[in-house]
Amino acid sequence: MRTLFVNPNITPEITAHMAAEARRAASPHNEIVPVTGSFGALYIANRIEAALAAHAVLDLLAEHAQGHDAVVVSAFGDPGVWAAKEMLDIPVIGVSEAAFHVARMLGRRYAIVCMTPRLRTWYVECAHEHGLADGLVAARYLPTPVDDVTRAAQDLSDAVLDQCRAAVEEDEAEVVIIGGGPLAGLAHRLAPHVSVPLVDGIACAVRLVEALAGLGLAAPRSGSFARPEPKPSKGLSPHLAAFIEGKT
Amino acid sequence: MRTLFVNPNITPEITAHMAAEARRAASPHNEIVPVTGSFGALYIANRIEAALAAHAVLDLLAEHAQGHDAVVVSAFGDPGVWAAKEMLDIPVIGVSEAAFHVARMLGRRYAIVCMTPRLRTWYVECAHEHGLADGLVAARYLPTPVDDVTRAAQDLSDAVLDQCRAAVEEDEAEVVIIGGGPLAGLAHRLAPHVSVPLVDGIACAVRLVEALAGLGLAAPRSGSFARPEPKPSKGLSPHLAAFIEGKT
Amino acid sequence: MRTLFVNPNITPEITAHMAAEARRAASPHNEIVPVTGSFGALYIANRIEAALAAHAVLDLLAEHAQGHDAVVVSAFGDPGVWAAKEMLDIPVIGVSEAAFHVARMLGRRYAIVCMTPRLRTWYVECAHEHGLADGLVAARYLPTPVDDVTRAAQDLSDAVLDQCRAAVEEDEAEVVIIGGGPLAGLAHRLAPHVSVPLVDGIACAVRLVEALAGLGLAAPRSGSFARPEPKPSKGLSPHLAAFIEGKT
Amino acid sequence: MRTLFVNPNITPEITAHMAAEARRAASPHNEIVPVTGSFGALYIANRIEAALAAHAVLDLLAEHAQGHDAVVVSAFGDPGVWAAKEMLDIPVIGVSEAAFHVARMLGRRYAIVCMTPRLRTWYVECAHEHGLADGLVAARYLPTPVDDVTRAAQDLSDAVLDQCRAAVEEDEAEVVIIGGGPLAGLAHRLAPHVSVPLVDGIACAVRLVEALAGLGLAAPRSGSFARPEPKPSKGLSPHLAAFIEGKT
Amino acid sequence: MRTLFVNPNITPEITAHMAAEARRAASPHNEIVPVTGSFGALYIANRIEAALAAHAVLDLLAEHAQGHDAVVVSAFGDPGVWAAKEMLDIPVIGVSEAAFHVARMLGRRYAIVCMTPRLRTWYVECAHEHGLADGLVAARYLPTPVDDVTRAAQDLSDAVLDQCRAAVEEDEAEVVIIGGGPLAGLAHRLAPHVSVPLVDGIACAVRLVEALAGLGLAAPRSGSFARPEPKPSKGLSPHLAAFIEGKT
Amino acid sequence: MRTLFVNPNITPEITAHMAAEARRAASPHNEIVPVTGSFGALYIANRIEAALAAHAVLDLLAEHAQGHDAVVVSAFGDPGVWAAKEMLDIPVIGVSEAAFHVARMLGRRYAIVCMTPRLRTWYVECAHEHGLADGLVAARYLPTPVDDVTRAAQDLSDAVLDQCRAAVEEDEAEVVIIGGGPLAGLAHRLAPHVSVPLVDGIACAVRLVEALAGLGLAAPRSGSFARPEPKPSKGLSPHLAAFIEGKT
Repeated sequence: MRTLFVNPNITPEITAHMAAEARRAASPHNEIVPVTGSFGALYIANRIEAALAAHAVLDLLAEHAQGHDAVVVSAFGDPGVWAAKEMLDIPVIGVSEAAFHVARMLGRRYAIVCMTPRLRTWYVECAHEHGLADGLVAARYLPTPVDDVTRAAQDLSDAVLDQCRAAVEEDEAEVVIIGGGPLAGLAHRLAPHVSVPLVDGIACAVRLVEALAGLGLAAPRSGSFARPEPKPSKGLSPHLAAFIEGKT
Repeated sequence: MRTLFVNPNITPEITAHMAAEARRAASPHNEIVPVTGSFGALYIANRIEAALAAHAVLDLLAEHAQGHDAVVVSAFGDPGVWAAKEMLDIPVIGVSEAAFHVARMLGRRYAIVCMTPRLRTWYVECAHEHGLADGLVAARYLPTPVDDVTRAAQDLSDAVLDQCRAAVEEDEAEVVIIGGGPLAGLAHRLAPHVSVPLVDGIACAVRLVEALAGLGLAAPRSGSFARPEPKPSKGLSPHLAAFIEGKT
Repeated sequence: MRTLFVNPNITPEITAHMAAEARRAASPHNEIVPVTGSFGALYIANRIEAALAAHAVLDLLAEHAQGHDAVVVSAFGDPGVWAAKEMLDIPVIGVSEAAFHVARMLGRRYAIVCMTPRLRTWYVECAHEHGLADGLVAARYLPTPVDDVTRAAQDLSDAVLDQCRAAVEEDEAEVVIIGGGPLAGLAHRLAPHVSVPLVDGIACAVRLVEALAGLGLAAPRSGSFARPEPKPSKGLSPHLAAFIEGKT
Repeated sequence: MRTLFVNPNITPEITAHMAAEARRAASPHNEIVPVTGSFGALYIANRIEAALAAHAVLDLLAEHAQGHDAVVVSAFGDPGVWAAKEMLDIPVIGVSEAAFHVARMLGRRYAIVCMTPRLRTWYVECAHEHGLADGLVAARYLPTPVDDVTRAAQDLSDAVLDQCRAAVEEDEAEVVIIGGGPLAGLAHRLAPHVSVPLVDGIACAVRLVEALAGLGLAAPRSGSFARPEPKPSKGLSPHLAAFIEGKT
Repeated sequence: MRTLFVNPNITPEITAHMAAEARRAASPHNEIVPVTGSFGALYIANRIEAALAAHAVLDLLAEHAQGHDAVVVSAFGDPGVWAAKEMLDIPVIGVSEAAFHVARMLGRRYAIVCMTPRLRTWYVECAHEHGLADGLVAARYLPTPVDDVTRAAQDLSDAVLDQCRAAVEEDEAEVVIIGGGPLAGLAHRLAPHVSVPLVDGIACAVRLVEALAGLGLAAPRSGSFARPEPKPSKGLSPHLAAFIEGKT
Repeated sequence: MRTLFVNPNITPEITAHMAAEARRAASPHNEIVPVTGSFGALYIANRIEAALAAHAVLDLLAEHAQGHDAVVVSAFGDPGVWAAKEMLDIPVIGVSEAAFHVARMLGRRYAIVCMTPRLRTWYVECAHEHGLADGLVAARYLPTPVDDVTRAAQDLSDAVLDQCRAAVEEDEAEVVIIGGGPLAGLAHRLAPHVSVPLVDGIACAVRLVEALAGLGLAAPRSGSFARPEPKPSKGLSPHLAAFIEGKT
């Protein structure tokens, strides 16, 4: 199968970094095809940038989804994910919903560790918007600001480990999610050093779309996730305009 | 005061129609300044179009907010509203959150009447995402599809009235919100014919931003609603790029 | 417009203190008409005194509401507010529901700072009873008992400021409500010293009843907020008896 | 033991009717001592009358509680019950909380049958305010208005039975609460005709205060249910003034 | 009345210890008849042992329930309690639901003190599964492991007292539940030393089944708590097989 | 990989029927190894039988889990699933939690269709106990009793289809779960006839354990899902006794 792996920020280095974790986690038969946002912000750190990213996700899907079997939206916070599910006949999953689902299969108390207080607020909102906040016992962030997001996974490894341990010891988390694209791969690397499962949304999303694709469920033909009626548009990219106007 | 009145779809007729209700409802000292989305869909009827609209809202704000005292985002479902609150130092309110707040000040059981089942699902999600779904006892839609959204307020008046009465009689609603820009003004017109208050989000939003502006609260300088750090961007309109990059 | 401003405790000094904040916050066209409870306790600090205050509110409304356009019930905790909404055809709002509504329009995480642990418990109950506790992240009280409630706003200014800052730093509140009539006006005075909006329920209530009055919604003629059927009464003040018995 | 049985409306016939059910349900060692409100409305059918009743409850307790071992507040909707718990060192329970607790010990899905739509709304609010609404699957009322509340238990027997059966068949209730003082005793009489337990709040409250009294738990000396600090009062009955001012 | 008092672990010493508290707390007319599990673990400290205990409860009931008027399942966490309610025509209550119900009658904020972090997680789950977690403000455990569960009430008295006080001072609990069979009786002994009511689930359960038995409600003949249809079984004890197969 | 597929009722025909669906749904590399309960009831239709089944699950795991990579507990309602997760170092998932997770990845409104009203109540409880009931809009059952569970998938096909369609049309479900082992495979067969995805918990569980196994997360060494301390046992099967006593 081919999984379209969508990074809705504009930084190819982050795409490459996240795609590496996706490929590490994927089944052999699952080809990861990464794409990077064509507009937006260097990375996504607040609701404004997430709103731009949601549009960027849909734009990328309009252009690239054809020929793929599934989509992973790889920005913790899941910008545009429910709209993307509405848009396509193939399974779509966001990396944070994937992490929340897996965390809740593994235990009853989960925590999130992320980079900044601002992301923390947004990620907690995200858990509530997915209706998966039950069991979320803490959301922690790093005590010092992040200098260079492209080096976060290296530079911040110790600080992330400290917060994971604090989540276990102080919050009694039974599962810890490490959230945020720049931290991709850290869960895998730090796992031996923490006494509960460390979960990376990218790995989870990759495996969950394999599961969904494997189930082979038909796309809905009614309800709010059926493909919408076409209507006129303006000012959109050609591919997205074609989708909105029903010309695809 | 000057209120920027943002219609994030691309249809000036709907802007004009909604702005008329906004002006009817506004205080004499509140000048309503309508703007229309520069990209997106003819109107907003699903999560995909809402995601585009959220970007359109931020784009309009980057270009037009300066010189205004408050913002109303006038698309039921409130695309981009929390991002917009993060973006500006002036009060911002969406028409659906406005309607939910007012409904809950007036009674304990409120209903929404809207045009289509798809909007219904989205509006209910919206109430939950605002954390204002407590007391939402029903969300009803019209039994027949809408032919021409620009004529909805005329053509659908009787059908809307039927659903408002059903909300009172069957769902025991104590307040009914009529939702969706094309229906703007109907609440005011149908009020004499329904035994509980009929609420129009546009009127509510206009009056609530007057209240917020009157309170004169300072903008936050910390937390997830403080103005964000600048960062590089790509592919955005000049005004929005300037905002993201901190050049305004 | 004329707003009846109801203090349901028996202390005219507190009425005057709160009315001063109400007038500071009101629009020029909104005349604030304060009244003080004719029975009850010196001030309201627990559920017992709040229960007496609820009766006092209805008693004051029966006597004074006529000729006014709106009512503010000015006791944090909102004694009798929903009963008062049932009683009158004009808008009624309590200062705590007003503060909760405004806090939730401004951010996603709000805190309350009040005078005593006992008030804290009651105010949190109040937020839940209004269905507005979503987003309430902390409720703090002053570490030392309050000697003289009529001097609270002066004497306790520093202690309140400390708790507001703690709410921002420790609880990550994005909005802080300062609750309790004796602290009226403090939010306005301390605002420059705290990095998030400080909200005073009195100011919020005054502006929100202006908004509600401006909306001009008709009173309900059905449901649990329509005016009730008359019935015999006993032992009530003449005005309240007349209301209950339908003789007004 | 002696249980003070408080009817906070002003109608001795209803007191007598409810006390009969209380005595039928009580243990032999539990003497039921009924008292009737000295002010308020003929019966309690909305939030206004409930607010007056809350004051009446406290007034009756100040005068009569001494010498009793427990208190039952016998008005469905529980006016003043939490304030009453704050006031006394003996157990206090309201008839609706008693019914909710018992219903939830017996099954997972409970319904309420009451006399009017207005009471329905209030009773549902009451279940939420007690935090016991989990499992409340329906609240039903009689299709026709009630002419004479003192004859309700006789006249409305068939109508109540119909609603109890509908609650079982349509709402799949596993327990049905019959609510409202005038219907006291009906649950016991109709029980043979309904396939799930019928619960009367009065009987439940009488048995639950026996249980609480039997547990012999000490009254709290800290927290929001400890006896409050005395303070000056005005315009209250001598007994209640003495309580508020700490002269008892 | 005769109350079957079921200890679903296999340790008669714990049965005896808990039955002593049950007898201390029971009314004179309530004979406590203790039975001990015939299979399972030494004591119940996790979900695995609880699952075995649920079977053991049903097994004991099939053998012993006849001739009794009520059942108390005495293992904090309430293994098998809802199944037991489905099985019998007499009232059944678990010691943790009993404690939760009583705690919520006495105050608005309750805490649990138990022996280990693992029990803590399970007890909190239990409160949620009963739908009684509203008002649960903290769940605390002892800082040091428990050496000998049969001596817990003596050895751990001081450590439990410390946690009770911390629950009052740090968590502002208004009621504290001491949970876990080995701690039976401690609530009664420590009560004079803590400023809020201390609640023991065994005492509560004993008094609540007296209340339920006294109410004399008929068993349900429909719904999910009616006695189930017989069906073939295999590998069960003779009494339980007879029950499942409808031969009792 | 080898997946232990646990049917905790005692009927090998149902095991075979469910295992067929598991094999149809599994990846080629996933060998399904079915086992059947050694004690319990013919099938599981209420909380009593589910409690026995939970023990049976643990018993089967103690005997058979070794040498497998994952476990599916195949009884809708998930008896013993959380205990099973506590017991093993390999992933364990129940068929109902699997269905709930998948349903929530696919849409915002899901319904359950099952065989009897009794199962309906239990399945809804199950959704709440997993914390996955958000979005559960309806739970439907077949209008006529089930004669022969081993022929349910054939005999009841039309009745199930009717309820699936009603869930879409009346409840506006966007995903429908068909629940109950005897109905295994129906979702796959009926899918072409319903306009939204039909979900079978068995297929979901099989694919989700593949995903979990693929993630390769380490088992927890702390918290309530770490392997428990050994302790003495009595009356258990040799394998289960060995597990409880730490002799494996």
